[in-house]
Amino acid sequence: MKEITGHTKVFFIIADPIHHVQTPQMLNRVFAKHQFDGVVVPLHIPKQSLADAMKFFKGLKNFGGCVVTVPHKMDVLQYCERLTKEASMMGAANVFRKHEDGSLEAHMLDGEGFIRGLKGHNHSVKNKSVYLAGAGGAANALAFALLNEGVAKLTIGNRTQQKAEDLRDKLLMVNSSFDIHIGTGNVSGHDVVVNATSLGLKDGDALPLDVDTLDTSQLVCEIIMQPKETALLKAALQKGCQIHYGTPMLEGQVELMAEFFGASKDE
Amino acid sequence: MKEITGHTKVFFIIADPIHHVQTPQMLNRVFAKHQFDGVVVPLHIPKQSLADAMKFFKGLKNFGGCVVTVPHKMDVLQYCERLTKEASMMGAANVFRKHEDGSLEAHMLDGEGFIRGLKGHNHSVKNKSVYLAGAGGAANALAFALLNEGVAKLTIGNRTQQKAEDLRDKLLMVNSSFDIHIGTGNVSGHDVVVNATSLGLKDGDALPLDVDTLDTSQLVCEIIMQPKETALLKAALQKGCQIHYGTPMLEGQVELMAEFFGASKDE
Repeated sequence: MKEITGHTKVFFIIADPIHHVQTPQMLNRVFAKHQFDGVVVPLHIPKQSLADAMKFFKGLKNFGGCVVTVPHKMDVLQYCERLTKEASMMGAANVFRKHEDGSLEAHMLDGEGFIRGLKGHNHSVKNKSVYLAGAGGAANALAFALLNEGVAKLTIGNRTQQKAEDLRDKLLMVNSSFDIHIGTGNVSGHDVVVNATSLGLKDGDALPLDVDTLDTSQLVCEIIMQPKETALLKAALQKGCQIHYGTPMLEGQVELMAEFFGASKDE
Repeated sequence: MKEITGHTKVFFIIADPIHHVQTPQMLNRVFAKHQFDGVVVPLHIPKQSLADAMKFFKGLKNFGGCVVTVPHKMDVLQYCERLTKEASMMGAANVFRKHEDGSLEAHMLDGEGFIRGLKGHNHSVKNKSVYLAGAGGAANALAFALLNEGVAKLTIGNRTQQKAEDLRDKLLMVNSSFDIHIGTGNVSGHDVVVNATSLGLKDGDALPLDVDTLDTSQLVCEIIMQPKETALLKAALQKGCQIHYGTPMLEGQVELMAEFFGASKDE
C-alpha cells in the first residue's frame, strides 16, 4: 500500500457488521498496483447513522467514493443525485462516487463483476443460452448483465416461480426483445448454467437445480465463494462439465470498483 | 503500515487545507511500531462542514478518535462531552477520542508535546527558571505545561505586554502559587529560554528576544520547525548556548497522540 498523506484521496466501505469485509484489502492492493493515491477504509455504520454519514460525505472535500454493502445497498440511493441504469433497475447500489460538481452517482456492479470474472477465465456468454437459478437480488443483477452482454436466451428458474416471472417481466420492460423463459430445474439445452441462489452455502442445502440434467457440453458457474466447491460444482465435475468458481466475480467487481473510482481503466 | 481490514480501528485528522499535513505518515508509523491495528486518514473538512462531521463521528462504531488542526481547534470543543484541563484551559483541542460510552473527550497536547520532546533530548525543566517569548496560542500551551512540569519561575515576554499579563493572570487563576513574571526581552538569569512566537519563520523576522543577554549556561529552545536553524538558534550557538530544535515537539506530540488513542503507553 502507498503511504497515506495529505494528498491521498479517501474512499470508504460502509457496512454493519464490518469485521468480515475483504474489500479494503483487495481494493487497496488494486489501488497500489495502479499507483493510485487513494485509500479504502472500513466504516462501521449502523442503519440509523446512514443519513448522517451521507451528509458528511457530501461535505468532505477529499472524498472519492464508497463501496456499499449490507444493510445500506438500497438506502443509499435516496442520497445520490445520479443512478446508473444498473442501480436504477436493481433499486440498489454497491458503489457510489463523488463527482467534481459534488453530486453522488450510485452504481451496481454485481452483474458486471460476474461477467468480468467469466472473461478473466476466457469464458464468453455472448449468443449463448444461459440457465440462471434464482430470482433474488444477485439473480436480478446477473440476469440484467447477462442480457446486456448479449446472451441469445435466458432461462430463469426459481423455487417460487412467481418471483422468476416477476424478474422476467421486469427485464422485458427494459427491453421487450429479450428472449426470456421460466425454468423448471431441468437445464438441458443450455450452454451455461449459473447458480445465483444461496443454496450451497450451508452443508445439506438442497441443490439449486436438477444436476441429473447436466451434460459435458456445459459450463457451470457459482457465485458462492465459501465453500469454494459447492455441491453443485462437485456434481458438475462428476458429470464432466467445465466449472467456474465464485471468487472471480468478486475479483471482477474489485477491478470494476477501482475503474469506477478512477484508479485506472487500462492496465 | 499494517494492512487495513474490517477489524482496523479508524482515526482521522481533520483540517482545511489538508495537503500539507504530516500527521498521517508519522502517526501511522507509530501505530505500526506498536503493532496497533489502527489507521489515520486525512479528512479535508471545511469549517461549515464540521458539525456534520462531528455528528457522523458519533454514529461511527469503529471510530477511535481524531487529530484536529486549523481551522477546527476551537470549534470542536462544543461537540465534545469531556474536556481535559489542558483543553479547557486553552479553549482549544488538537485531539479528541471516543470512549466506550460514546462520549468524545477533547485534549490539547501542544504543551505536553514540548515537554516530551525536551525529555527525549535529556533536558529537564523541573525547578529551573524559564524565559518564555510569546503569549499566543502556543505560548499558552507551553506556559501551562512548563508550570505543571514544576519550573521554579516562569517569565513571559511579549511584544504586546498586555497579552503577557493576561496570560499570567489566567495561569494564576489555575494555581495562585505559580511564580510568574513579565519579561522585557532580557533573558539573563534564566536557565532555559523558549521561543513560542512565530518570529523566525520568515527571513528578516525580528528576533523574539534580546540575544545579547544570552549566555553559555543557557538552553535555548525553538518550536519553529522550518527553518530548522532560526536566527535565534544561530545567535544562541554563537553565544555558546545549548540549543533544542523545533521538531522534537512534533515527535513528542505524535507519541502522545498514539498513547491518547490507546496505541500503547509503554514501549
